[in-house]
Amino acid sequence: MHDYRMECEMSVTDELLANAQRYQAEFTRGDLPLPPARGVAVLACMDARLNPYGLLGLAEGDAHVIRNAGGVVTADELRSLAISQRLLGTREIVLIHHTDCGMLTFTDDGLKDSIAKETGVRPPWATEAFTDLDEDVRQSVRRILADPFLPVKDSVRGFVYDVRTGGLREVAPA
Amino acid sequence: MHDYRMECEMSVTDELLANAQRYQAEFTRGDLPLPPARGVAVLACMDARLNPYGLLGLAEGDAHVIRNAGGVVTADELRSLAISQRLLGTREIVLIHHTDCGMLTFTDDGLKDSIAKETGVRPPWATEAFTDLDEDVRQSVRRILADPFLPVKDSVRGFVYDVRTGGLREVAPA
Repeated sequence: MHDYRMECEMSVTDELLANAQRYQAEFTRGDLPLPPARGVAVLACMDARLNPYGLLGLAEGDAHVIRNAGGVVTADELRSLAISQRLLGTREIVLIHHTDCGMLTFTDDGLKDSIAKETGVRPPWATEAFTDLDEDVRQSVRRILADPFLPVKDSVRGFVYDVRTGGLREVAPA
Repeated sequence: MHDYRMECEMSVTDELLANAQRYQAEFTRGDLPLPPARGVAVLACMDARLNPYGLLGLAEGDAHVIRNAGGVVTADELRSLAISQRLLGTREIVLIHHTDCGMLTFTDDGLKDSIAKETGVRPPWATEAFTDLDEDVRQSVRRILADPFLPVKDSVRGFVYDVRTGGLREVAPA
């Protein structure tokens, strides 16, 4: 007999946990070291359509993957990259934005005004919205190159991923 | 005949780009919409051994994935989560830290002192180093619950991934 109550109460998170149990059952890579084997840090947008593992052919143990709304570079990404390079030896940075990005659909003032109207408080952070995709990739690369705490800047390359074609186009350095 | 010069100059990034060309050649999901199909945002550590796609069974289009050193919650993760919920409709948050994390191997003052000694400048960011893994998961969940700009907090659950066993253990809410 079906337990309809259980079925209705099962959240998406519960479904993902069931997947995690399957992952553990087949898991064989308990021997991987802490430092990334490929010596690369990937910084990409959080977008659901952009899968850095599939796209770049990454496997467990290969690379640090840092992600946020837009794939932008703020203080927290510079913190993560500094830890990646200084403590765990990564030497190349791959930065990925993508077409049809949500960050192109609003303005900083517009979103912050609407949040302030609803909550009574204006967010203390910049939304990092942008209007020119390629230019924001270049801007992000420039923020990395300008940072005084990253020791290795020989390979900092920026790309746009096309969510329609699955293709990757290099934008920076240009 | 082998071109040894080309071989020596090929960076890891170049190898990943070759993988990206294979990904594009087999790409069939150019029809995915911008909002994540599963309505979930995953916030996880950048660690190379933690692969949220394999672990949670995520495919292209399913979920936002936000990552940084430690899987911690700073202003930039709250920005990304606000955009994820407010503009793209996600309703559940899955937070993942992991065993053997690099963030357990240093102290905030220790790392910042060493960077200041080398560069002459003390980083203006907190390193977010922690000493108690479970407690930092709970701290991260609490930072999310305390944020005034996130509209949906019904399902904010925190986990520790075991890099040796591949298992996922729920820590918060506890």
